[in-house]
Amino acid sequence: MTISIIGSGNVGGTLGTRWAQGGHQVVFGSRNPDADDMKQLVAKAGSTARAASLQDTAKAADVLLLATPWPATQAVVEGLGDLGGKPLIDATNPLKADLSGLTHGTTTSGAEQVASWARGARVVKAFNTVGFNIMANPAFGAERPVMFYCGDDAAAKQTVRPLVEQLGFEAIDAGPLAQARLLEPFCLLWITLALQYGQGREIAFKFLRR
Amino acid sequence: MTISIIGSGNVGGTLGTRWAQGGHQVVFGSRNPDADDMKQLVAKAGSTARAASLQDTAKAADVLLLATPWPATQAVVEGLGDLGGKPLIDATNPLKADLSGLTHGTTTSGAEQVASWARGARVVKAFNTVGFNIMANPAFGAERPVMFYCGDDAAAKQTVRPLVEQLGFEAIDAGPLAQARLLEPFCLLWITLALQYGQGREIAFKFLRR
Repeated sequence: MTISIIGSGNVGGTLGTRWAQGGHQVVFGSRNPDADDMKQLVAKAGSTARAASLQDTAKAADVLLLATPWPATQAVVEGLGDLGGKPLIDATNPLKADLSGLTHGTTTSGAEQVASWARGARVVKAFNTVGFNIMANPAFGAERPVMFYCGDDAAAKQTVRPLVEQLGFEAIDAGPLAQARLLEPFCLLWITLALQYGQGREIAFKFLRR
Repeated sequence: MTISIIGSGNVGGTLGTRWAQGGHQVVFGSRNPDADDMKQLVAKAGSTARAASLQDTAKAADVLLLATPWPATQAVVEGLGDLGGKPLIDATNPLKADLSGLTHGTTTSGAEQVASWARGARVVKAFNTVGFNIMANPAFGAERPVMFYCGDDAAAKQTVRPLVEQLGFEAIDAGPLAQARLLEPFCLLWITLALQYGQGREIAFKFLRR
């Protein structure tokens, strides 16, 4: 499977590298695919990874990961053109620039905005609730954190679920895409605990059942 | 310490009972303190519990727990009169009647609304993120779920924290009261997972660190 990374920063770079090292074909999309940082990223990710323009990256995809900074997201997504029904994992968070809140709240969500912009895509929200350091290595000793995902298309979610599990998370289907209205604040909880309220970045949540 | 329960339903009844059985004085506030269900509640909670009118309950309090249904909350809180600086634990969630969302979102929170209504109270948000069945018994084998709390007054939070811990939760200070804008959606995540998306009510979150 070819996984195309739209936005190859911390989140996109980490996830793409781990997927590539796990045997997937990974294309790191960038406005400047020949830049030095992209060459370094591809070298680290290994022989199944390459870099390409954003448009070529989208074309190559079986699955897309969207991990752009929020202010760039609309323009980047609209620039991809029709995505022909491919699953798109939305790992963005519609954060205000100062992290003081979300730009979209209880009457909609960033994920739903993305879905309105991403023509032809079946959007699944995932990978938006912990920092990239946790995505890089989810293990907490023998314990495994949860990763929620949500979306309106069952088949797209079936595609995404093993991608979550392969990275070492417990994948939990949180329902339709509008559930992003809850997962996006969940992300901000992680961020504020990690960065403002003293917990540091090596934190995550485990889902408990009994 | 006397803990006064404003709203003695599932959440208030469960927490008050556990606190009473742990040795605290507990007053269960009700519009009908002589009703049969209140008598049953007090009998179950034991000799350190009693029932009283809402006003008398508030007067007796060292700490108040607010656990009212959202539609009743404003009128109940305003009817308590001046609370003279007492800590008030806000366990409510500003849920729409059909649970489809929150009535207050990213630009404010139910907790902040409560703080604007509760004259003289130092509001701490807590106990709003899991169901009462988890509050009744937080143990998941040897594992302990997290309970977040937030508020603007450090002393009030210091009062609340051991009340959280005594029930078997890991207490984590999530910051100022405006963090309720994140903890309230967190509650709705729990609710929707439990009731709509197949996880059932015996679920919670553990905070992982490394």
